Amino acid sequence: MNIEKKIAAKGLELPDRQPVVSNIEHAVRTGNLVYTSGNTSPNHVGKVGTDFTIEEAYQAAVDCTLGCLASTKHVIGDLDKITRVVKVLGLVNCAPGFFNTSAVIHGCSDLLVELFEEKGRHARSAVGVAELPANSAVEIEIIFEVAN
Amino acid sequence: MNIEKKIAAKGLELPDRQPVVSNIEHAVRTGNLVYTSGNTSPNHVGKVGTDFTIEEAYQAAVDCTLGCLASTKHVIGDLDKITRVVKVLGLVNCAPGFFNTSAVIHGCSDLLVELFEEKGRHARSAVGVAELPANSAVEIEIIFEVAN
Amino acid sequence: MNIEKKIAAKGLELPDRQPVVSNIEHAVRTGNLVYTSGNTSPNHVGKVGTDFTIEEAYQAAVDCTLGCLASTKHVIGDLDKITRVVKVLGLVNCAPGFFNTSAVIHGCSDLLVELFEEKGRHARSAVGVAELPANSAVEIEIIFEVAN
Repeated sequence: MNIEKKIAAKGLELPDRQPVVSNIEHAVRTGNLVYTSGNTSPNHVGKVGTDFTIEEAYQAAVDCTLGCLASTKHVIGDLDKITRVVKVLGLVNCAPGFFNTSAVIHGCSDLLVELFEEKGRHARSAVGVAELPANSAVEIEIIFEVAN
Repeated sequence: MNIEKKIAAKGLELPDRQPVVSNIEHAVRTGNLVYTSGNTSPNHVGKVGTDFTIEEAYQAAVDCTLGCLASTKHVIGDLDKITRVVKVLGLVNCAPGFFNTSAVIHGCSDLLVELFEEKGRHARSAVGVAELPANSAVEIEIIFEVAN
Repeated sequence: MNIEKKIAAKGLELPDRQPVVSNIEHAVRTGNLVYTSGNTSPNHVGKVGTDFTIEEAYQAAVDCTLGCLASTKHVIGDLDKITRVVKVLGLVNCAPGFFNTSAVIHGCSDLLVELFEEKGRHARSAVGVAELPANSAVEIEIIFEVAN
């Protein structure tokens, strides 16, 4: 299906992934599962509901998802090895009283299904949290199932 | 053991599960694991500690758990295929200063052990979050191990 | 490699793990994965950013990690069976406006790599949450891969 061509055709690109300096990894594979680290949204720093609208935060969720994909490519080499998107945990840096976290994390879910079609459908939680690293507006981690 | 009979004998029922309209699933199976989406508590909307007491939020956690079971049945067809409850992530929509999240999520843990006995015992985190989708009081996601 | 000797050589010790009274477990194994419960920091109760500095909270993260290791030993008997640290979810009880959650959870990541070297490198999310059980400053859950 050539996932990277689909990403480029949408005018998007995977962020660069160098080896991590600190004691973590972009992603870890165990058996047929790849767990990504939480990927933040460096272009969206602040709280959703005050600093960012839902539409802007939706785009932040797209960026986090591209980060998760880049992290996974860093480990498995080729995104076409992904056989299923299993689980998304979407974290939204909410201003008090903002709770439409689902609409924000749709930015992730919609992209995954555009790229992977039926295999992109996934279990998901969308949660509003108090703070995220470096005041990122959104953070997303994904579990992918990959081929042997 | 017939889990659904046990649920009915307790005067409880599984909520209805239609196919999801948006790009997510109620639950996804990979290998012998089923990951549910986060299940919210539609009958308890608001914050625990102000809008709801611990006892009320405990019941909200019961409802979320029934949602997780319904989501899993939607994927595997028969809850008797569950061989172990592996992991619960319980999220409580906390009013400032309310932190007895464990007592709330016991509503989930107690039901799982009543239904599945020793196989219902699970690893768990109970976390107080800023906001949940649609201002739900509780949200729970579960990882189940299932038979081949 | 004898992980417990390394822990002792660092002047640290695993907390005691008795069987859990309530309906949860310290950790659950499924296949080659062990999921720990969220381990809190009983010596650090309060919010990071007001009640605790980053340095103090870093130590709380060390304590949570020792708790996760003790929980895992309770299930698999010997920490030398761990073949990979897969995933860390680090939760920080943040005072409003404190968002250097990464620096806090480095207390976990650094210890894991000191103990397990390359196998200790892991995927991670570090999240700031509104409240944690019993007002713990930090809570950490870990997924370990273990040998047959």
